[in-house]
Amino acid sequence: MTSTANYTRIFDSIAAVPSLAPEWRARAMARLNSLTKPLESLGRLEEIAARLVEILEEEHPQCSRKIIFTLAADHGVTEEGVSAYPKAVTRQMVLNFLSGGAAINVLSRHCGVEMVIVDIGVESEFGDVAGLVKAKVRPGTRNFTRGPAMTESELHLALAVGLDLAAIAKKKGYTLVGTGEMGIGNTTAASAITAVLTGRSAAEVTGRGAGLDDQGLKNKIAVIERALAANNPDPAKPLDVLRQVGGLEIAGLTGLMIGCACRRIPVVVDGFISTAAAAVACALQPKVRSFLFAGHKSSEPGHLALLNFLGAPPLLDLEMRLGEGTGAALAMSIIEAAVKLFNEMATFSSAGVSEAVG
Amino acid sequence: MTSTANYTRIFDSIAAVPSLAPEWRARAMARLNSLTKPLESLGRLEEIAARLVEILEEEHPQCSRKIIFTLAADHGVTEEGVSAYPKAVTRQMVLNFLSGGAAINVLSRHCGVEMVIVDIGVESEFGDVAGLVKAKVRPGTRNFTRGPAMTESELHLALAVGLDLAAIAKKKGYTLVGTGEMGIGNTTAASAITAVLTGRSAAEVTGRGAGLDDQGLKNKIAVIERALAANNPDPAKPLDVLRQVGGLEIAGLTGLMIGCACRRIPVVVDGFISTAAAAVACALQPKVRSFLFAGHKSSEPGHLALLNFLGAPPLLDLEMRLGEGTGAALAMSIIEAAVKLFNEMATFSSAGVSEAVG
Repeated sequence: MTSTANYTRIFDSIAAVPSLAPEWRARAMARLNSLTKPLESLGRLEEIAARLVEILEEEHPQCSRKIIFTLAADHGVTEEGVSAYPKAVTRQMVLNFLSGGAAINVLSRHCGVEMVIVDIGVESEFGDVAGLVKAKVRPGTRNFTRGPAMTESELHLALAVGLDLAAIAKKKGYTLVGTGEMGIGNTTAASAITAVLTGRSAAEVTGRGAGLDDQGLKNKIAVIERALAANNPDPAKPLDVLRQVGGLEIAGLTGLMIGCACRRIPVVVDGFISTAAAAVACALQPKVRSFLFAGHKSSEPGHLALLNFLGAPPLLDLEMRLGEGTGAALAMSIIEAAVKLFNEMATFSSAGVSEAVG
Repeated sequence: MTSTANYTRIFDSIAAVPSLAPEWRARAMARLNSLTKPLESLGRLEEIAARLVEILEEEHPQCSRKIIFTLAADHGVTEEGVSAYPKAVTRQMVLNFLSGGAAINVLSRHCGVEMVIVDIGVESEFGDVAGLVKAKVRPGTRNFTRGPAMTESELHLALAVGLDLAAIAKKKGYTLVGTGEMGIGNTTAASAITAVLTGRSAAEVTGRGAGLDDQGLKNKIAVIERALAANNPDPAKPLDVLRQVGGLEIAGLTGLMIGCACRRIPVVVDGFISTAAAAVACALQPKVRSFLFAGHKSSEPGHLALLNFLGAPPLLDLEMRLGEGTGAALAMSIIEAAVKLFNEMATFSSAGVSEAVG
């Protein structure tokens, strides 16, 4: 497709995101209050179940067909020494995902989640490897300290890849989507996006990523400051922010979230990078927020700023900072548990249990 | 067994709890640091896996055979109007557990956990019901505003029931034990224990339980104050505290934790009531602490005080306050995930992934 066609499609998808209807929440609450437990004693699990009812508009929502899309891409800004790992690790980790040895593989198996690995912009070619979705927009972004990370048409193509993945998820009957990513250098892009959208300084929202030392962190902050000065991104123009200081996997995830929202597929957002994509998606279309669950709180300092920006309390806080979709996988199991409680618990009347006195 | 025999057995079990050997932690850390992930990026999951290695003293610990013991008992103090639910609900909920309709049934199925329901002190007789472990010490505790909840021999018998359950878990090959309970009135007992062991006032550590209103909460605090005045429990004598203001299910759980610790079975402690039992176990034998994982933080206000007393950060905080073992079930799945990551992830060298630079 041409860039114009992609742009139109993105625009149409943004416009197609529905609002949730409050009558479905009321129906969900009535059932929750009839189940054999003290009122509201399942805490956040009740809110999750109610939201699934609202999203799916079903008396008995299902979310057991779970899939994580892990999008991989490289970042030109790694030239500036912003990561503790060499760029080659993006490719190496993609191969590790494909052979089942990475953390996300273990957690996906444990949580009953299927996994799709997408090359949306890894620098090197993979050739003929089984199981990889090939959707490379370009071999890594440009170094955004010297100008935009992407052209407009590259951005549109990356967003369209995400929309395509959402369409595939819907067609194949997945009922819960998780986001994941791999890209050496991508906490630098996520920190830059976070600084712009939340109005905070680079120093406030930048962390050690995969393991920078003090000197490395200082350099990373300076690199982000230079990128912001070179591009001067405008928080009122989220697509420009994404194009200027984002990444191909981040743009793909933004497209995925918009695509899922307009198809009423709930999305579990993983950590810092995924939440940067979510922040762009919600800046473009606030209605997307209703379809998102924040999987966990990463120990990257910018993540909390983004979660607050989104008003999305994380489900888990296990001090993880790995990405790949690892936080999403664990949270998807919690969400599935909440929905099973909603569907499977006995009611006070069916179980013959007395209700509260007075 | 006679009370003296039980007491000897309890005393012997307390003495038999082993200390963890630091060399196993060092071995665990070496493997964790060889796995394909940035150093320490799995956060608390790494600490969990390392502790399992220390507890089991195995290079590849296993914890997939999971069981929750849910102990049910009644409380004489319900005469004082301390619960929003009638006492009959303890029995009704036991029947709900046995027919599979309670929250803990749904979560146990979801998390692959087996469940055992134990009548350690429900007021009424169950007759011939399938699946219930009958270990009733007495039909509910005495009203502890007028004197001790139990006699010494009843306390020893309840502790011995817990020791027996640990022995069964070991014999049947379970590798991870979760605690659960059901007992209308048992937050009152747990709050009383918490006040004594942490040195806080009843008002600080008492909450609404299953759903008291303001007047009910005020009465509950006054009841606990009367119980403490009537029994004058000494925090330096944890068994006396348990006997005076505890409950039969709480004593059973204390015994279960001690029994598991002396057999090197890791235990996932559920919410407020279970943590009160854990606090007594650790007051009796501080080494028990190494074998415990705090499953979640309940929204009952006394729970945080107990977790701090134990120095046990909770794994989950989903604002649940249901008991039954519900928080333990979800946390057991997280612990299993941590151990699978430890065992199943590729290493940098096996996957051909570059390590950090410098």
